[in-house]
Amino acid sequence: MTPVSELLEGRTRPTFFRGVATVCMKLFNIVQPEKVYFGQKDVQQTVVIRNMVKDFMLPIDVVIGPTSREPDGLALSSRNVYLGERRRKVATVLNRALRAAEEQYLNGVLDRESILKAANSIVVDTLNKQMALDPHERVKYEVDYISLADPSTMQEVTEVDPQVGGILSGAVKMLPVESPQSGEDLGHSGGPAVRLIDNIVLKPSA
Amino acid sequence: MTPVSELLEGRTRPTFFRGVATVCMKLFNIVQPEKVYFGQKDVQQTVVIRNMVKDFMLPIDVVIGPTSREPDGLALSSRNVYLGERRRKVATVLNRALRAAEEQYLNGVLDRESILKAANSIVVDTLNKQMALDPHERVKYEVDYISLADPSTMQEVTEVDPQVGGILSGAVKMLPVESPQSGEDLGHSGGPAVRLIDNIVLKPSA
Repeated sequence: MTPVSELLEGRTRPTFFRGVATVCMKLFNIVQPEKVYFGQKDVQQTVVIRNMVKDFMLPIDVVIGPTSREPDGLALSSRNVYLGERRRKVATVLNRALRAAEEQYLNGVLDRESILKAANSIVVDTLNKQMALDPHERVKYEVDYISLADPSTMQEVTEVDPQVGGILSGAVKMLPVESPQSGEDLGHSGGPAVRLIDNIVLKPSA
Repeated sequence: MTPVSELLEGRTRPTFFRGVATVCMKLFNIVQPEKVYFGQKDVQQTVVIRNMVKDFMLPIDVVIGPTSREPDGLALSSRNVYLGERRRKVATVLNRALRAAEEQYLNGVLDRESILKAANSIVVDTLNKQMALDPHERVKYEVDYISLADPSTMQEVTEVDPQVGGILSGAVKMLPVESPQSGEDLGHSGGPAVRLIDNIVLKPSA
C-alpha cells in the first residue's frame, strides 16, 4: 500500500490505510462483488482501493460516488455534529479554499504555486477576520495541509498535467471555541477539536 | 506473510515468500480457481499459501500433494542433475536423517532433543565415514538446518504436541567434489555446490 498510504492522511496514521486495504480485501473475497462503491470524500482511500484492485487483479469495478454536501458547501461528515453553531459557519472555509483553487485550474492555470495561492488566501483571510473578532465570537482553526496531488499516486505535483488532472485536498482542525457564551450550542460532547477533510477532483481537460 | 516467511528457507531470502504470496494472490484472482495444488516438498511455501488463503478469506481449497522420491528416498528436484554420481549416492543423507527422527516420533518420543538427536547422528556419522575416505572418493556437505517445527506456524517447538503433530525439515549443502577422477560424472555444469531440502510431516497421533 506504500507509498500512497504514507502521505497526507497517512502521515499521522501510518498503518491506517494498510488496515483499510486488509479489511476490504477480506470483505471482497467473502462477498465476491462485481462492483464496490466508495465515496469521493475519502479520496486517499479511493486511491488505495483502486491500486489494490489493480495490483492484485481483482475482477471488481470500483465506483466512486460524489461527496454529499450541505447547501453552503460543507462536506457531510459524522463529525459535523461536534462543531456547534459558531464553528459550523466558519467550517466552510476548507471547501471555499479548495473551490478558489479549482477556479484557477478551470481558468487554465496549471502551476502549483498559483493554484494553491488561491486556496491559501481564503484560509489566511478568513482566519484574520476571525482573529479580529472578540474571543466570545471568534473561531480559530489550524490548517493541517492543502495538497495538489496526482490522482493515481497522491504524490504532490508542481504542475497539473491537463491530460491527467489532479486532486485538490485539505485538512483543517477547528479548535474548541474560546469564551463560550451562556447557553451557546457548542456541538456534541462539549465541542471538542474537530478535524475536517475535503477534496475536489480536477478533471483532465485535454 | 511474517513471521513464517522469515524462518528457515526465508532466513537467507528475506522477500522470497512475500514474492511467492504476491504472485499466487494475483494468479488466484485472475483464474478464480476452486482448488490449488502445491507440493509438500516446499513445505514452508504450503504454510505461507495456507495462511494467505485463510487470512484473506479466499474461497479456495489448498491441496498438498506428497513429495515424489527416487527409490532410495531422495526427493525429486530439478537440482539433482547437478549432483553427479559420487554425490548422488550420499545425497540420501538428509532423507535418512529425517526418517530416523520420524521413527522416534512414531515410537512415542515427543521431546525435541531426542527426536533431533536421531537425525543429527545420521548426519554426523555419514560425514565422518566420508571424511575417512580418500579425497578422490569422498563427499563433503554442510548442514544448513535440521528443524522440528509447528505445522501451521513453522516456529521451532521444544516438544511435539501429539494433537498437532509437527514438521521435520532440513537443508543440506552438497559441496563440489574434491579431486575429480578422470572421466568422472560430476553432474551438469561441472557439479557446483547443490543445496538440497526435504521434509517429513509428523501427523497428529491423538
